[in-house]
Amino acid sequence: MTHNGSESNKMSGHGYRGASEQERREQILKVASEQIRHYGYQKTTVADIAKSIHLSTAYLYNFFESKRAIGEAVCAQVLTEMASEIAIRTGPGVSPSGAITLIFNDLSSLSMRMFSEERRLHDLLAIAFRERWRPPILYKEELLQIIRAVVVRGRELGEFERKTSLEETCEAIRYTIEPFFHPILLEQESRRLSEESRAVGDLVLRSLQS
Amino acid sequence: MTHNGSESNKMSGHGYRGASEQERREQILKVASEQIRHYGYQKTTVADIAKSIHLSTAYLYNFFESKRAIGEAVCAQVLTEMASEIAIRTGPGVSPSGAITLIFNDLSSLSMRMFSEERRLHDLLAIAFRERWRPPILYKEELLQIIRAVVVRGRELGEFERKTSLEETCEAIRYTIEPFFHPILLEQESRRLSEESRAVGDLVLRSLQS
Repeated sequence: MTHNGSESNKMSGHGYRGASEQERREQILKVASEQIRHYGYQKTTVADIAKSIHLSTAYLYNFFESKRAIGEAVCAQVLTEMASEIAIRTGPGVSPSGAITLIFNDLSSLSMRMFSEERRLHDLLAIAFRERWRPPILYKEELLQIIRAVVVRGRELGEFERKTSLEETCEAIRYTIEPFFHPILLEQESRRLSEESRAVGDLVLRSLQS
Repeated sequence: MTHNGSESNKMSGHGYRGASEQERREQILKVASEQIRHYGYQKTTVADIAKSIHLSTAYLYNFFESKRAIGEAVCAQVLTEMASEIAIRTGPGVSPSGAITLIFNDLSSLSMRMFSEERRLHDLLAIAFRERWRPPILYKEELLQIIRAVVVRGRELGEFERKTSLEETCEAIRYTIEPFFHPILLEQESRRLSEESRAVGDLVLRSLQS
């Protein structure tokens, strides 16, 4: 392959070679995700990922600039999937009150399942939260949006009180769910999580219905 | 000093030589606390503590069986002091509603002060929480008791709803304060803590008054 200056610039971005570029990226991510699930993030190396799909390490760096960039992408995938699942389950098909209950229930059960069945992925999330990577920040933002959609709907339908500022209410609820999704807290408080998340969900509901 | 078997058994417990034993223990703790505040728990050694009060390391082990036992004792002191301060400020002198607001406010400001002004102690607490030492478990129990006292008083005075089970209500509130005292969360979410803790406190209040 020969490139002029302009074309080799494209290699450093994510748009290189259109669809096949995107496919390559997804292929790398798929393998990275498998290796992290199997060996853990710490023991996964960029060289191993490249080798297992017969790429050179140098070529792989065209797609992800560092191991951390790969870790972030896997982390983003996992968190986006969880948020989407919750967003779908709490959509207009359920009552706003039911949706609040579901948010607490689903978030704690999805997070606990990750902790007990996908420990290596859980560990990756713990690193991401501890080191303040971008995906956990976006995840919290997504959770806030899910909450906001439910509260807005609840207010419109007259199920929830409207005196308190919408943003204040939603951010407060976002904080009350923190112990049920934060990977570092989950490691410590796993015993009665479903019970506790239900109790806090009910407390929030009483508050919204006051 | 000579000891018969029975007396040297006593040396391994905390009751050795009555009052002066207690004084010695406090002296060790005081120095340990200073060294931890100054150098951090990781860099503090039992030998250094012993040396700075002219004791042999072996003699010090009569009072604390390990470095961790010293760390736990310092940790317990710090957490007990915070819990006591909150217990006093939320006693019968303030209304139950005011007490709920104070719990959120004081807990977040005390914890943040520790984080910003006593970073080494904060780091000790972070280790204690992460490794599930006993003092953080007792601290959560103490916070639950403080909450319970306030909620019981609020119910008796007719300020708070009584339909929900007392234990469920109190444990749910205990969970909602978690992001405002947990050292590992504080490291990540320090920006708008006083604002957020007030918002969650108000949410809890609306719930109690529903």
